[in-house]
Amino acid sequence: MLKLYIGNKNYSSWSMRPWVLLKQAGIPFEEVMLRFDTMEPGSAFKQAAGSINPVGKVPVLLDGELAIWDTLAIAEYLAERFPDQHLWPQATAARARARSVCAEMHSGFSALRSHCGMNIEASLPEVGAVIWRDQPAVRADVQRLVEMWSALLAEHGGPLLFGSRFSIADAYFAPVCTRLKTYALPVPAEIAAYVERVHALPGVKAWIADALTEHAFVVIDEPYRAAR
Amino acid sequence: MLKLYIGNKNYSSWSMRPWVLLKQAGIPFEEVMLRFDTMEPGSAFKQAAGSINPVGKVPVLLDGELAIWDTLAIAEYLAERFPDQHLWPQATAARARARSVCAEMHSGFSALRSHCGMNIEASLPEVGAVIWRDQPAVRADVQRLVEMWSALLAEHGGPLLFGSRFSIADAYFAPVCTRLKTYALPVPAEIAAYVERVHALPGVKAWIADALTEHAFVVIDEPYRAAR
Repeated sequence: MLKLYIGNKNYSSWSMRPWVLLKQAGIPFEEVMLRFDTMEPGSAFKQAAGSINPVGKVPVLLDGELAIWDTLAIAEYLAERFPDQHLWPQATAARARARSVCAEMHSGFSALRSHCGMNIEASLPEVGAVIWRDQPAVRADVQRLVEMWSALLAEHGGPLLFGSRFSIADAYFAPVCTRLKTYALPVPAEIAAYVERVHALPGVKAWIADALTEHAFVVIDEPYRAAR
Repeated sequence: MLKLYIGNKNYSSWSMRPWVLLKQAGIPFEEVMLRFDTMEPGSAFKQAAGSINPVGKVPVLLDGELAIWDTLAIAEYLAERFPDQHLWPQATAARARARSVCAEMHSGFSALRSHCGMNIEASLPEVGAVIWRDQPAVRADVQRLVEMWSALLAEHGGPLLFGSRFSIADAYFAPVCTRLKTYALPVPAEIAAYVERVHALPGVKAWIADALTEHAFVVIDEPYRAAR
């Protein structure tokens, strides 16, 4: 059986993507959580992660002896291994667009990622308001998301980014949807509605439910709270 | 015909990847260079790039009306569109590994990328020596490259990362090879030999030859030189 190594569900946005993808597609897999402590060399997390892949990060997918790391490589691997699931959109142009926006997420949105780290159980609207006021780069990142999602929802008719079928792109932006809620960042109504639809996907709901039961407090992922 | 929008060949490491991939595979394409000036909103570069894709960055591949941005999405698109070229390794496990290391490059090696920006025509061994002495994160990035390339060369028998056939992975690390030379960063002999083999690929030689004729001096890409 496929085995997916992940970090804490409350914090690990990169782990969330392939987990939600597998869950939402109904692909059976075993989950192994490597709990975050610190990212220093020699930390328990780094030692555990380093024993699974040479990069020492999560997520990692194991298919037998084969280790695949990084969310994009995992997504492509799953799309090839389960072709009937149509994890990418089937039309060539839509598939190219889906890969473009996923790759854009993979290397971009750095202001949003650094200022608004994923923290599913937290509610930080006042922190979000200050970030929104003081960080033009965060506003620009959100503006780009709004443009991207609006265009895709209009082009493919919704309710998801590439039409009615869940795709890798929705999994890819699911952690961003949780951030918009945690920090209460302002978005137009149709975008807020997409965020709610993503939260209502069974795979996303399952991840969030698990995150809410973790009750861990990882200091390196808590720039805005002193305790839970 | 395919049309590839790129930045200055001397500096634009992300543009180099799909260009070398197309050239090396013998796929005909038209090249359009958008010269870097600044990355401020409203700059000539940002205006030109913004008219081609919503992200306002290069590279962008146009196939008719279809715009594909970001190197990974372009690579996947070309691999699908030209299946006979086998741009990814053919074996499943090797293909998964190639995607893993390309995705790792796509989101990682940030210390090497920020301290040792691509600058093909420059020779900066003294800058490189100071970076090497003072920046442990750069040393860690190079150490990871050495481990990765050594393992792949051993596993697949060389002379390239996945055996004798050029793949997306070699294109992906070609700009890194130029950085190792520009900054004269120390690597073991077998890695230096791989760097030389990459430099000898016709597609890489053609890009470098063009870069050397540009004679542009882009201030934002020149943290270490006051002039050419």
